[in-house]
Amino acid sequence: MHITSTKNPQIKHLKQLQSKSKLRVDENSFVIEGVREIEMALTHHYHIVKVFIAEDFYQADLKFEEHTQVIRISSNVYQHLAYRSSTEGIVALCKSPKHNLSHFKTHAENPLVLVLESPEKPGNIGAILRTVDAAKLDAVMIADPKTDLYNPNTIRASLGAVFSNSIVLGSSDEIYEFLNDNSFNMYSATLQNSNSYLSENYKTKTAFIMGSEAYGLTTFWRQKPNIQAINIPMKGQIDSMNLSVSSAILIFEALRQRESIV
Amino acid sequence: MHITSTKNPQIKHLKQLQSKSKLRVDENSFVIEGVREIEMALTHHYHIVKVFIAEDFYQADLKFEEHTQVIRISSNVYQHLAYRSSTEGIVALCKSPKHNLSHFKTHAENPLVLVLESPEKPGNIGAILRTVDAAKLDAVMIADPKTDLYNPNTIRASLGAVFSNSIVLGSSDEIYEFLNDNSFNMYSATLQNSNSYLSENYKTKTAFIMGSEAYGLTTFWRQKPNIQAINIPMKGQIDSMNLSVSSAILIFEALRQRESIV
Repeated sequence: MHITSTKNPQIKHLKQLQSKSKLRVDENSFVIEGVREIEMALTHHYHIVKVFIAEDFYQADLKFEEHTQVIRISSNVYQHLAYRSSTEGIVALCKSPKHNLSHFKTHAENPLVLVLESPEKPGNIGAILRTVDAAKLDAVMIADPKTDLYNPNTIRASLGAVFSNSIVLGSSDEIYEFLNDNSFNMYSATLQNSNSYLSENYKTKTAFIMGSEAYGLTTFWRQKPNIQAINIPMKGQIDSMNLSVSSAILIFEALRQRESIV
Repeated sequence: MHITSTKNPQIKHLKQLQSKSKLRVDENSFVIEGVREIEMALTHHYHIVKVFIAEDFYQADLKFEEHTQVIRISSNVYQHLAYRSSTEGIVALCKSPKHNLSHFKTHAENPLVLVLESPEKPGNIGAILRTVDAAKLDAVMIADPKTDLYNPNTIRASLGAVFSNSIVLGSSDEIYEFLNDNSFNMYSATLQNSNSYLSENYKTKTAFIMGSEAYGLTTFWRQKPNIQAINIPMKGQIDSMNLSVSSAILIFEALRQRESIV
């Protein structure tokens, strides 16, 4: 098959999936752009339904599963689809896997997980996913998600780390219950009644819990008696740091203490 | 004065300053939006030439210098100007100060500075400026800048930290010479021939040197024999973290060693 018109229904559908979060959620499908990102999705056994290849641009040599349909598209169709100004010549239609807590498994004796409550900015989420990949955390758990995980900006900002990480999506209730039942030491990033992050020990089962960019943590997390509030002491005039920055400072302090990266 | 038309030359000029980096640089002027950001600029003695206030929205009570001209604008003019979806009712025209190295002074015995070579993304630069503010670094030095410091997205992402920090703009040559002449211990974030960042000591005069998001450090910085290359060990599949994230991990490790934040 060779698609040469931007009005082709499959192309229109891809465009809609790129821009409409609700459609992505309803159809459990999303679009991946870029060789590196598609390669990451392949490595991590994502179900790629179709790939659209513009032969004038495509230089890579990705190997797809048998079930993946390969469709040729003309340069103008590719340029119409390309969300970023890349010339890699490939776009994929991919199925979203389940991210339920029930699918989460870890063999680590002392898992380290990051909980994000309703993060909103795809750029932040992507940056955090890169950090989580680098730190090889056991999971990142998104509580009460507000932003679709497979937003094109998240995929792009994550450089594909959205595919390599173990990601859980769930309600705050179920994530809290899981952490509690599994005896995690929980630390919430909050200013009120908190200790310096440097005064705590993160060597055993640890969960860091971070609020949203604009509102911080809700009372749900702030009022749990068995969660220790911690802060990153700040000496300037702004009273907060970027969410991906504070997450990284906590995560890498935990790694330092665990000496696994020295 | 009360401006009610979006075609007013002053309003057109503001719009151009918001979108045209070259014009900002040529005129040493830029636009600030938001009460908090304008307040930060006032606190740090920025020269605010004019403020444009929409009385239907404006609730704050900022005190301006005598030289600042206050101009009333109608709601429709304000909404035409408002770069972000805020309803704070105020926009300021501000002069950029000099950021030359010759203006940089510190009384710290062991200054800690961050050097960024040609960072490009306003969102990253803004996030880094928030970190630099929180850590109260002695300076952030932008070598061979590519992105205008007063880009509206940088101001916004910095939450006003662009006004609170000591910022130097200069060539890589002059910044290196300054650090060398002043016997800074220099650490470049590079993978090649590098030590783990946890194995170095940052308690004396320290400069961290970070490359751009897309290209890392140029050979100018990588080939200096008296700069120690350091890396943040990464265990995942992506070989890099976001620039604002890696900068923060290094900075907060230095603070931890200096014990100034415990």
